[in-house]
Formats: sequence, structure tokens, C-alpha cells
Amino acid sequence: MRNNSQLKLSFLGGVGEVGKNMMCLEYGDDMIIIDSGVAFPNDDMPGIDLVIPDFSYVLRNKHKVKAVVITHGHEDHIGSLPYLMQELNAPVYASRLSAALIDNKLREHKKKFKTNVVKNKSVVKAGCFTIEFVKVTHSISGSMALAITTPCGVWFHTGDFKMDFTPIDGEPMDLIRLAEIGKKGVLLLTADSTNAERPGFSMSEKKVGATLDGLFAQNKQKRIIIATFASNVHRIQQILDICEKYGRKTVFSGRSMQNVCETASKIGELRYNRENITDIGSLNKYDDDKICIICTGSQGEPNSALSRMARGEFPKVEITNNDYVIFSASAIPGNEKEIGEVINDLYKKGAGVIYESLAEVHVSGHSYQEELKMIHSIVKPKFFVPVHGEFRHLRAHANIANDLGMNERNIVIPDLGDCIQIGTNSIKKINPVPAGIKLIDGLDISSANGAVQRDRMQLATEGLCVVVLTISSKRFVLTSKPDIVTKGFIYGGDNANIIEEAKDLVINTIINADFKSNDWSLIKDAIKKNLGNLFFKNLKRKPIIIPIIVPTV
Amino acid sequence: MRNNSQLKLSFLGGVGEVGKNMMCLEYGDDMIIIDSGVAFPNDDMPGIDLVIPDFSYVLRNKHKVKAVVITHGHEDHIGSLPYLMQELNAPVYASRLSAALIDNKLREHKKKFKTNVVKNKSVVKAGCFTIEFVKVTHSISGSMALAITTPCGVWFHTGDFKMDFTPIDGEPMDLIRLAEIGKKGVLLLTADSTNAERPGFSMSEKKVGATLDGLFAQNKQKRIIIATFASNVHRIQQILDICEKYGRKTVFSGRSMQNVCETASKIGELRYNRENITDIGSLNKYDDDKICIICTGSQGEPNSALSRMARGEFPKVEITNNDYVIFSASAIPGNEKEIGEVINDLYKKGAGVIYESLAEVHVSGHSYQEELKMIHSIVKPKFFVPVHGEFRHLRAHANIANDLGMNERNIVIPDLGDCIQIGTNSIKKINPVPAGIKLIDGLDISSANGAVQRDRMQLATEGLCVVVLTISSKRFVLTSKPDIVTKGFIYGGDNANIIEEAKDLVINTIINADFKSNDWSLIKDAIKKNLGNLFFKNLKRKPIIIPIIVPTV
Repeated sequence: MRNNSQLKLSFLGGVGEVGKNMMCLEYGDDMIIIDSGVAFPNDDMPGIDLVIPDFSYVLRNKHKVKAVVITHGHEDHIGSLPYLMQELNAPVYASRLSAALIDNKLREHKKKFKTNVVKNKSVVKAGCFTIEFVKVTHSISGSMALAITTPCGVWFHTGDFKMDFTPIDGEPMDLIRLAEIGKKGVLLLTADSTNAERPGFSMSEKKVGATLDGLFAQNKQKRIIIATFASNVHRIQQILDICEKYGRKTVFSGRSMQNVCETASKIGELRYNRENITDIGSLNKYDDDKICIICTGSQGEPNSALSRMARGEFPKVEITNNDYVIFSASAIPGNEKEIGEVINDLYKKGAGVIYESLAEVHVSGHSYQEELKMIHSIVKPKFFVPVHGEFRHLRAHANIANDLGMNERNIVIPDLGDCIQIGTNSIKKINPVPAGIKLIDGLDISSANGAVQRDRMQLATEGLCVVVLTISSKRFVLTSKPDIVTKGFIYGGDNANIIEEAKDLVINTIINADFKSNDWSLIKDAIKKNLGNLFFKNLKRKPIIIPIIVPTV
Repeated sequence: MRNNSQLKLSFLGGVGEVGKNMMCLEYGDDMIIIDSGVAFPNDDMPGIDLVIPDFSYVLRNKHKVKAVVITHGHEDHIGSLPYLMQELNAPVYASRLSAALIDNKLREHKKKFKTNVVKNKSVVKAGCFTIEFVKVTHSISGSMALAITTPCGVWFHTGDFKMDFTPIDGEPMDLIRLAEIGKKGVLLLTADSTNAERPGFSMSEKKVGATLDGLFAQNKQKRIIIATFASNVHRIQQILDICEKYGRKTVFSGRSMQNVCETASKIGELRYNRENITDIGSLNKYDDDKICIICTGSQGEPNSALSRMARGEFPKVEITNNDYVIFSASAIPGNEKEIGEVINDLYKKGAGVIYESLAEVHVSGHSYQEELKMIHSIVKPKFFVPVHGEFRHLRAHANIANDLGMNERNIVIPDLGDCIQIGTNSIKKINPVPAGIKLIDGLDISSANGAVQRDRMQLATEGLCVVVLTISSKRFVLTSKPDIVTKGFIYGGDNANIIEEAKDLVINTIINADFKSNDWSLIKDAIKKNLGNLFFKNLKRKPIIIPIIVPTV
């Protein structure tokens, strides 16, 4: 059997986690793309806000691409789609909520495209591939597994999933359909490994509703503030229902929270009585015990609604000892310190605070070990490739397949950039594909007018601007003039005095910022925004701007 | 009653956590200092390796200081003592192990001083204060609580502690002595709040030994590598005993591990047969199943022994699939990502890896809620000030005191810089004291020859050097010449060409580094070291050096 009569599955993009941001399946002259997301920058990437896959491999083969298939609407699965679609002409398939969230993104981009909406059991032809969508439960509605029939056999990809037998929308995973697919024979399984280290079963989303209901009952006199993920529509549905039960008006706070809730409500994924919603400007019309604020900031993001409330910098919401704040989320690794700071600030203002270690106010959206064993036992694949996780999670998931009797030779653990070749009787890694990452600074996202070109994303071409500030951490003023070093976008001559202009702008930014806390990230963001505008206006360039703040006494 | 016939308790230094690095008790013209530690820098302090208390308040009152009392030998309690003692003449009191660890530190400092060794029930007079040392159990041996008799009554300070009734050294806390102190009446209790959010009891250190014994029994053919805290002498004692039982030679790896084990062994805190120890250079003389390596790196520190092994950069230890690596530690918040990377690297090399979420390979050194209730119930203080923790932990601990029947008016939650005034019948916050922090760059520690002056620690006087590098994350080479911006230590003229010299040095550093992973911290450290030497040699200055690495494709 020649190579081009075998399947090739490649893993593009990502930072640390494999298979989440983008996968690419090929057979002969047909290619389909699974998801097109973003990763989040790590500490080694100062000034970078977003990391998108290097999809040069896809673009080099763009004549082959027959479809882009989206499993669900989380940022790490849809965030880079507008960038990819700048240069690709292929149909995009996604569930109703995913499609609506994608449409939201397109507002900021020039090239528009239409997403084809699919639902449970939808079947789509794409070249030699037949793609069936299978509804799964996860922490966002409209999540889909994929059963892809290929010339070599069926590839079943779970996407992100858990086994919730009592989901909020009343539609659990279609285990019977899964069993039918398994019975017909599955060549390859790729499955979510996020929680492969956790024994037992994940809890149902309903459990969170029960906990929250109890907390509302215990805190009838207080104003309740709940921070959660904007995309967790089912969580928000539960909170809305509980608010209605206890006679509280709900306020959505935070831009992404408002966006997602509006979008989800429009398409009927979120159902509530408009009369029970009010806005932040009307808070003073209601007593504390008649209000519940649902907001962003569950990860301690410094600019989020909750963090600003905690620091006393959010207009119209002043935290008092009559507030009861619930973190209905768990910490994404790396965010522990920031979340801790918000909790401390809230306590200092006298609020009651509750979080995952104190009560069951969150459940994971990813399958635990027993759920994974169940999917393996139903799908019964010949070959297994663990995906969605760091190497440790993939290894743990491979061990589970092993324990279930699968031969180690039939399991391949992928790394970023790997290409796995699969035939009816063989699986192996072949030459890797280009699969790095591209870094995007905040400006490119917030002010992107669709003119974003792939080349422009390159640091080397856009340049870099480092701003060094010494700020008194007691008096919150600059203790000397800022220094600025640029790289790759200002070349002497007429442009030289722009540096002086930039320094003055930084000084004014700090004077006007009127900041009072040691949370430098706000200052950093203001500097990035203002300098970004200055450079763009004068030079039509969008360098990456890295403010460095050195606290002095 | 006039103010100077009341007690004043002040909280100096620290980042986030209150009361750990330094406390200061005053009555009239007498002052004693409790602990003199370091904090660890957070993300807002680029280039900073160490944070010591601003002890200007102590120095301004140095004629009053009658004693410096050390509760235990962890860095956050002893790390800044050599700096404090540069300018202070007062007796220092500490347990045998704490004193030995302090002596170790003095090697790097010019001014030497002698620490007075105390033990359980030792009593020391210091001005109007009488200090009794009470042995407690914690994650380092030689930990002491303090019962300090003052003119206003007794202050009982637990220090860091847990209630381990089966400690490795066979000497549990002296509850009878505690009860006697409580019976005579305690004016003020200050107590460890680290785990005040955790219900129940902490487990005994012995539990870890039992788990490790089981893992040794299950992995008889493999080489075993255990990463733990160097200062946890009892943990290391247990590992040594298990190695002896299973006929394995032990290797200590990592500088601090070797230092602490040698020090502890010299004073008899660590007991082992010299014949059972070998060194890293002799590893090839032994089969895998005859070796156990105890090493540093349990927090994923990039330069630690374990991290370098995991990356394949540690001479003489190559990780294979016959290695079994145990993280006998839990993640300090903020280190989760780094630890995860080391685990991934180890798995990729085929090693077995076990960590806290998979087995009981670690216990906390701090009391849980039931232990705290016990100490409150025995000591029965009139006033309570929760210490050692972030605000959330102090608040949780205050709630415990509340639940036990203490009036909220008798509880004061301190913040950094607070001064609390305590009389026989009153407790309240008065004007805060200067209690900021001082930042120290790595060079000042590693090359400190005792010439370190308080003024020199100030950023403003030593200056700052930012190095901006673009490095290919695929090819690991510089993609353009480095840029350098300095601040406050190079002023035109003769020194201008030092910048060119510095750029060449950076280029050479990267060429010689021969790095192969995206772990930029190694490159950053090399640049800091080399540039630091260059500036010091030529300018006699030690600016803070901040390398910024911008990864390109």
C-alpha cells in the first residue's frame, strides 16, 4: 500500500497541549481541518496576548482542504479561525452556538464567511471523507464528537467531552449511536486526556446548581456575585433559574459575559425572562437581597469585572460586607496567584467569599478515568492516539488504554508537529510537519480591521518596543523619565523624534491613569494601548510593546 | 495607662504573607525581633531573585534591640538575618539546626556573628522580656514556639507548626507544658494560619514514609529518584532509612541538598551510615536497583538537579525508562506550570513519575483546622492575632477563633506594616511602621562579600540593564543583534563602549550556551551572570539585569 493511500493525521499549533488548537487529516488529495483555536501565552512571551497556530502547512495545501470542522466554541478551538479563513476558501461546519460565537468574532475582521450549522447526527461529505457529528456533553453547549469515515476506516474523535447523564439541556450523549459506530468498527480513536490522571467519574453540572441553590438559601440578605466562565452557558442557565426562584434580578457584567449571554439567548441556548435582567447602571434601584451579578474574572484576570470590583475600581459596584462572592470555576494552572489576590482583596473589603476548595461550586468539563474507560469500551478502536493534554496526561490516557487490553504498539502518543500515518493495519509517526506558533500582541486583536496579514503577525517585520519605567510602589509615580528601546521598526531620520513623543505619552499615561494599587498590569495595558495607537498613527506599524515596570520604594 | 507601658507588635517585610519574615515586639525601651527571613519575588519584579524586609524601623531603634529570636531554619525565617546583622549588635537565639543553617549562610558574608543555641524549655532574658522556647513539629526539625512573658502578660507565638503525634524524632509537641502556660493565662496568641482553610487534621510525616516504602517495594528493579525540600530533614531521614532497608546506596544531588544534609548530619539531626552514601560520580559503579538519588527540584526550578536531568542536561544522570521519579512535595502556588513541565519531560524520556495527586508522597508542615482549634483550646488567650498567611487565611483563622467563642473585638487581623498595641485589657492597631521590602538581584547574593550595604540594594542607585534578544525557538540561535538599554549606571564618555562590549558578550554567551530547549531561564541566568561580571569588573556596579527573550520562528 502506497503512502498516499494511507491517512495522515497532523497536530498543528498549541503550547504544551497537543491536538487542541488544530488537527489536520489527509488522504491523497483531500484534507480536512479539525478546529482552529488559540493557545494562551506563557511567561516566556512577554507582551504577547495570543498565540495562534502556524498554519503554513495548511495554506501550502489549501487546494486540498475540503472542510474546516469545529468541535465546540471554546477559544482554544475557534480563536484562530478568522485568521485561517483570511486565506482559505473551504466550508466551515459547527454547531449552532459555535457558529454564533464565530460570527461574533467576525465583526472585527474584514473577510467574512458563513459557518454551516450542524446538529447531532448531521452528516457532511468532504472529499473522500464522510463526517458525522455526535453530540457530547462538555462545559459549553453545542459540543460535538466526530465520526469520520475514511477510505481506511472510521476515525472517532471525542473532542473535549465528559459523560454527563443529567445535563442541563436534558440531552445526554447518544450512547446508542456511539455503540452502533463502535459495532461497525473504529480504526482510530482520539480522545480528550485532560483529566486522565483523575480517578473516578466527573460530577454532573447539575451538582453545581444544587450547591448554588443552597448558598442562595443561606445568604438571603446578601447581594450575591458569581464569577464564572462566560462560555459556560449551562452554568449561567442554572444561575438564572436560581435567581428567578429566589426573586433576584440578574446583572451580566464584563464584556465577554454580556456578549456570550446575548448571543446564546438570541439562538435560544439560554432561556430567561427579560424582566428578570437588569443592568449595572440600575443597581442602586434594588436592595442587595434582590440582586445577583454574574461576571467575568474567575481566573483573577486583572482587567476583569470581578478583579476591578475587588480593588474598588469598578464603577457602580462597591464591595461591602453584605456581598457574598462565589468563584464558580477552578483555577487554570498558572492562575493560582492572581485568583488568590482577588480573594484577599474581597475579604479585606469584608465580603464573604466561596471557592472550589470550600464548596462544590464547580465541576470539570472533561472526562475522568472511568468515563474514558467507558468511551474506549464502547468505541473499541483498533488504534488509539490520546490527545488534548500535556504529555503527562497523554501518557496517563495511554496507560488506561493499556489497562483495557490494548497493545502498546497500537497506541501512539503525539507531540506538537507530529504527523501520524495510519493504514488499515498500521500506525506510525512519519516526518513532522511545520507546526510552530505565531505570536499576536493585544493590539492586533482589539484594533484588527481585517487588514491582518499572516506576514504582519511576525515579530521580525512588525518590530518591538520595550518601555522601561521605574515607579514608586508607595507613591505610585514615575521616579525618573521612562526609557524606550525599539527594534525593527524605527530607522533614524524623520522617525527619531517619535521616541521622544512616545516618552511623553508614557509620562502622561501614568499621570492620567491615577492608579493606586501595585497592580502594574493596568498601567501596562494603558501604555500598550496608547503607544500602539501612536506608532500606528505615525508609522502604520504595530510593534509588540513590552512595558517593564521596576518598582522602587 | 500610657502608651509606652503597653506592648507594640509590628509586622515588617513580606510579600503577601503577614508575620512570616519579621515581627518586632516593643515595650518601653526594650525591643525583640522575631525571625529575619526573605520573601520570594512575584511576577511584577523582573530580574529580582530575593526580597528582604525593609528593616529601617529596627535600625532606627537599634539601641533598643535586646535579642533576635529565630523560630526555625526555613529561608523565609532566617534568609535576611546576615543582612540585618550587618548593622545590629544583639544576641541571636535559635535551635541547633537553625543555628547551623545560619552559620552556613555566614560563609558568604563578611561580618560574622555567633548564634546562641537553645532547646525545648530554654529560657532567655532580653530586657523586660523572658522568652521560653517550646518545641513544635513542622517540616523542618528544630522548630520552636515562643512563650514570651512581658510586663503586660504572656504572648504565645506558635511559629510555623503542626500537631504531629508520631514525629520522626520521637519528640511530639509538649502539650503538658503548653497546658501549664495556658493555665497561667495567656494575653495574646499569634498562630500559623497557612492551612486555616483546610478542614480536619494534617497527616503525620510518618505517613509519607509508609507510602515511600510501598513505592520502593513495588519498584525493586528500577532506579529511584526522589525530589524533596532540602530542609525537610525528617523526610530525608525516612528516605535514608528506607534505602538502607532495601539495600540501595543514596546519592545527594543539588547544592542545597548536599549542604543541608551535611550540616544536619554533622550536628546529629540526620543519622546514617556513611557507607550507604555514594556520590554522583560513582553512579556507574552501581546497578539501577541499587541506587536512590535524593535531589532538589521539587518545585520545578529550572536550574535544579531534577529539572536538568529531565531536560537531559545533567552530567552523569541520564533518565531512562528504568527510572522511577517521586515528587515528595506539593506545589507552592505559582510553581504549578514549571513542575508540570518537568513531569512532562520525565515522561517523555520514559520514566515513571509519581506526585502528590497520584499518591500520598507529601504531607503539609502546617496545622489544619482541628489542630488550630486544639492550640486555641489549650492556650486560651485573651487576644488573638492570626499570622503566617495571606489575608484569606488570616480571615479563616479569625473565623475559627470566633467559632470557639472569642469575641470579634478581641481579634485583630494584621496587614504588612501594621503596628498593634496591646495592653492588659485592650488591643488595637495604631500608626503603621515603615515596613516595605528591599529587592536583591541574584548577583548580590552569590557574589556578596559582606560589602553589601543597605543603600546598595536600592535599584535607583545600582541601575538597571535590559537586554532584548530575539531567538529562534526552532533553531535556538539569535536572529538579530541584541539590544541593550541601561538606566542609572552608565553615563556617556568612557563608559559608552561598554555597551558594545556587553552586546558581544551576550552573543558569545548564547553561542557558548549550546542550548536546545525553549527553557529560556537558563539563557537568562547565563546572561545575567556574565553581564553582571562585566559591569562589576569595569564599573564596580551591580545593576539589575533583565534579559527579555522574544521567541521567533
